[in-house]
Amino acid sequence: MVEVQALAVEKVTELARQFRVDSIRSTTAAGSGHPTSSMSAADLMAVLMTGYLKYDFDRPDYAYNDRLIFSKGHACPLLYSMYKAAGAIDDKELMSLRKFGSRLEGHPVPKIIPWVDVATGSLGQGLALGVGMALNGKYLDKLDYKVWVLLGDSEMAEGSVWEAMACASHYKLDNLVGILDMNRLGQRGETALGWNSHAYAERAKAFGCHVIEIDGHDLKQIDDAYKAAVKVQGQPVLIIAKTEKGHGIPLTANQDNWHGKPLSAEQAQEAIKLLGGESSITIKVAAPPQMPAKAQLSAEITGSGKYAAPHYSAPAATREAYGDALKALGTAYADVVVIDAEVSNSTYAEKFAKAFLDRYFEMFIAEQLMVGVGLGLGTRGKKAFASTFAAFLSRAYDFIRMGAISRGTIKLCGSHAGCSIGADGPSQMALEDIAMMRAIHGSTVLYPSDAVSTARLVEAMYHLDGISYMRTTREKTKLLYKEDETFPIGGSKVLYSSKDDAVTLIAAGITLHECVKAYEELKSQGINVRVIDLYSVKPIDVKTLETAAKETGHLVVVEDHWPEGGLGDAVLDAFAAQPPSRGEKISSKKMPNVVKIAVREMPGSGAPHELMDAAGISAPHIVATVKALLG
Amino acid sequence: MVEVQALAVEKVTELARQFRVDSIRSTTAAGSGHPTSSMSAADLMAVLMTGYLKYDFDRPDYAYNDRLIFSKGHACPLLYSMYKAAGAIDDKELMSLRKFGSRLEGHPVPKIIPWVDVATGSLGQGLALGVGMALNGKYLDKLDYKVWVLLGDSEMAEGSVWEAMACASHYKLDNLVGILDMNRLGQRGETALGWNSHAYAERAKAFGCHVIEIDGHDLKQIDDAYKAAVKVQGQPVLIIAKTEKGHGIPLTANQDNWHGKPLSAEQAQEAIKLLGGESSITIKVAAPPQMPAKAQLSAEITGSGKYAAPHYSAPAATREAYGDALKALGTAYADVVVIDAEVSNSTYAEKFAKAFLDRYFEMFIAEQLMVGVGLGLGTRGKKAFASTFAAFLSRAYDFIRMGAISRGTIKLCGSHAGCSIGADGPSQMALEDIAMMRAIHGSTVLYPSDAVSTARLVEAMYHLDGISYMRTTREKTKLLYKEDETFPIGGSKVLYSSKDDAVTLIAAGITLHECVKAYEELKSQGINVRVIDLYSVKPIDVKTLETAAKETGHLVVVEDHWPEGGLGDAVLDAFAAQPPSRGEKISSKKMPNVVKIAVREMPGSGAPHELMDAAGISAPHIVATVKALLG
Repeated sequence: MVEVQALAVEKVTELARQFRVDSIRSTTAAGSGHPTSSMSAADLMAVLMTGYLKYDFDRPDYAYNDRLIFSKGHACPLLYSMYKAAGAIDDKELMSLRKFGSRLEGHPVPKIIPWVDVATGSLGQGLALGVGMALNGKYLDKLDYKVWVLLGDSEMAEGSVWEAMACASHYKLDNLVGILDMNRLGQRGETALGWNSHAYAERAKAFGCHVIEIDGHDLKQIDDAYKAAVKVQGQPVLIIAKTEKGHGIPLTANQDNWHGKPLSAEQAQEAIKLLGGESSITIKVAAPPQMPAKAQLSAEITGSGKYAAPHYSAPAATREAYGDALKALGTAYADVVVIDAEVSNSTYAEKFAKAFLDRYFEMFIAEQLMVGVGLGLGTRGKKAFASTFAAFLSRAYDFIRMGAISRGTIKLCGSHAGCSIGADGPSQMALEDIAMMRAIHGSTVLYPSDAVSTARLVEAMYHLDGISYMRTTREKTKLLYKEDETFPIGGSKVLYSSKDDAVTLIAAGITLHECVKAYEELKSQGINVRVIDLYSVKPIDVKTLETAAKETGHLVVVEDHWPEGGLGDAVLDAFAAQPPSRGEKISSKKMPNVVKIAVREMPGSGAPHELMDAAGISAPHIVATVKALLG
Repeated sequence: MVEVQALAVEKVTELARQFRVDSIRSTTAAGSGHPTSSMSAADLMAVLMTGYLKYDFDRPDYAYNDRLIFSKGHACPLLYSMYKAAGAIDDKELMSLRKFGSRLEGHPVPKIIPWVDVATGSLGQGLALGVGMALNGKYLDKLDYKVWVLLGDSEMAEGSVWEAMACASHYKLDNLVGILDMNRLGQRGETALGWNSHAYAERAKAFGCHVIEIDGHDLKQIDDAYKAAVKVQGQPVLIIAKTEKGHGIPLTANQDNWHGKPLSAEQAQEAIKLLGGESSITIKVAAPPQMPAKAQLSAEITGSGKYAAPHYSAPAATREAYGDALKALGTAYADVVVIDAEVSNSTYAEKFAKAFLDRYFEMFIAEQLMVGVGLGLGTRGKKAFASTFAAFLSRAYDFIRMGAISRGTIKLCGSHAGCSIGADGPSQMALEDIAMMRAIHGSTVLYPSDAVSTARLVEAMYHLDGISYMRTTREKTKLLYKEDETFPIGGSKVLYSSKDDAVTLIAAGITLHECVKAYEELKSQGINVRVIDLYSVKPIDVKTLETAAKETGHLVVVEDHWPEGGLGDAVLDAFAAQPPSRGEKISSKKMPNVVKIAVREMPGSGAPHELMDAAGISAPHIVATVKALLG
């Protein structure tokens, strides 16, 4: 049980009033934004900040701090008003809301704003991220911090919220408190459930939450709710607060057509007057507990610190090597955490799970949740590896996209890529995952072809910031490399080359092995080709590709992926120029002739080699293409 | 209330037995597949098929047929065994399961198999698609067919299932019956809720379902459940059936490690013996009602049949033109249906909603649901247009991917694309949507730049099969075209060209207007450039691009999108060769110099022009790039 400050009603009233005034002021100055969505939650946040939140604004990364997530990110005028009241920003900065160059963007963004942990603005994501932080507090760092998540009622329509709730109750996350700002009104009108608190309550209870229903403008009820919430054990809490959108002034209170709309200057002036005028009171937010002297947080890296790569002497599936590597990472580093969406026996994440059960969390079949939890763990310094079939990561694309906006870190692995998985059919075949992951800002996209390179690249992923992705293969593939080989991010490997290479074959994963077969066949026919292992799809090894283009003229890219957005497009992009940064001349690159061999028709079921043949991505097709090129 | 056949226990028992035998036989012959996931639901399907399903296997598209969705698509050996029992396929075809060339793929796929409506295999999707079909039955075609959805218990972890349930109860879909095959075991072990029928029941009730809990191997209880289910009014039904995975033989019944694993030949022989041997009984499935003579289904196209494009005389946002066009389509064609994820006042889908409320369905903030419902409507012949912010369509990527595998039809519109939306910040900016949508098999990707072309392209989308996507812009843009202009899919428009164009500028959407400004500035400096409106991003107008490359040498592609997978990559791809189809020589295309001007850093908030300037995609940057190119 935690100690809480006594509630000072007057102070809290004053604070809530200021939040409303500041939300109006900042959005009117911005000419856009969401004052009314802020006003509905002002009382909730005023009580939280005065009596319950334990946070050191001078040390936002301090491990003992509570975490506060505005899942309804559009209510950030309220969040920023809280920062002002905490003395973290001044009024001038508050008034820079949404202006170019201001760190107070239209939706909260971490790093830029040090007190924000995760970017929100795509609704329904905050709770999953909070689950990641709460899992960390309860099971990994074992710290008593609370994770407070302010939820909008519109976003309760997103299934991801219920995935998060199910997970939170499964893992008995009593350190997670959701605060539902049930203001009845969505963007375009009433929500599906309106003010039906009972309906939300029944749903949340059925999903394992301890539910507290209150009037979200009654300070005493709010205080009682938090007081009860922090004492709940063994369950996450959802406080359902009935509120009015735009509460505080008749103009906006519970009125239609006030979503995402600032008051005019005149309306704002009137409203501020009604609310009692501008102010700049500050309050001292309760301090989190002091870190014990010589505290050994598990967040600090322990373990051997030495990654011992697994050994291979026979063909192995890269997905299995991924599992081996995770286990080796787990031994080396105590901050490695693994999550999987109920397919750990296929992705081989189970190898880690069996060795380090205390650092493995089962997400069941909920990929959005999985990515959200991984990003949440990342905010607490954990190196989270999340895996499922690559095809099913498409389920989490919005979460991954938001992860990049969060400047978050997560290591994703998608197994069972491409038509080469065989009989399961196209629903299980990722054929768009590279396109999807390349288009994530700042992402790293890796696609190893053998067990040795997989094991090395998983190690590299551990050290990467941002969103990284590894594509693995279902089938066993031959070993291509010796154990002392290195695989720098942004590099490639030239497997075969000679002075008289007529064509360069470029591939990664299972099609690289088809290229090797094609190389051998062509060689037997007296045709030399170069073969490049493009294990680092993003960043890509421009230099090696340019050399190959210059020396061989023709680049043939072979991939078990749709022609859009995959290896072929990545190679083409390596030859595109960029605009000049300081007015210098753009040097035209010599564009090679590029042939893209990719999957162009919807595959069905069959044996891997049958499907690769049918898709035209197997060795005979590569040989035929090279010969057609050379006329 | 519908009439049902009397239950003939012996016949049903025999049928269920045969389903189990055939599920074992076919998967053992295939060497892969999911016999145990089929065996758990065999009794449920035997009773359904004998007593409740009304379906004419000779006319799978018949509007009065019930629909049956295996949301747990991996249980298709059971589904295919049902087809055999219905006489739709023979035993020989059944035994071709998962073999190359067989239409009985590892997960069910429509069109190839005429009795399958939607592809499943990515879990958690079937119910949303069923909601689309049920909405059609209840509100559009107004037919009494039932939509039966067989659900797995593992997939109940997907939030999309709960989105579908919330929508089904919101729209009182009493023609939708979910059958939950609660066999306790997922792929890698027990599900989160195991056999906790009560927990599922509480959740489903809270989400508005009428719930019936039964023993899924007790034929009488199953029959009673269906009998009750078809009588329920005003609510969807969920039958929660406690079952055993692998039920029927001790080897597999409720045993671990039997997911997705066929029995060995010896195990199968023994199992079939235990189950009473092979058989090939057929049953007559109850016929759906006869279509009344001269029935006028609303599914048939009525309306004026003539699309009257909206008129424009001043700058307008393409998103608003989308809304205008939808409304005009609604007048012309009665089979146009519009859905939106709670942002219809931003996407302008509300223009349709206000005019045709009976053909508009609100999906609230649930994009996966929205796409699933749209695809479900599409299976019943409706032309469903689904819109939200383009950024949030990323939420539905797996559903869109599966829609392509379904050979399904849906018309998607993503508004608020790119950094040019301004102050709301990056969470609301789609910068990866073109990459995402290009990598959907068979997709059409459109990106109009003015209201006139938008209105014409929306009309074109109405007539398209498959997955089509339109990207619209938040800001108002100038009119570029006269009303009699045509915009064929796969075409482009050359806005400016001359004999001495030194460079070609290629863009679509808001950046096209920046190119026009750059053209004017460059012209004033004596530099002629060509300007191409690439409104059809996929398929792309290769010929016009080749001509431009030949005549101007340099192509500068300008886009409000990440550099990966967008217009730039689409243009580069137009110059890549494909492998030879019949051994002919590949003609090397002359590769132009391509410069990609795209968004390369994470945008913040600000005015549209500030953000476009900061991203380097505005006219001054284009001018500078052209001048740098020309040295």
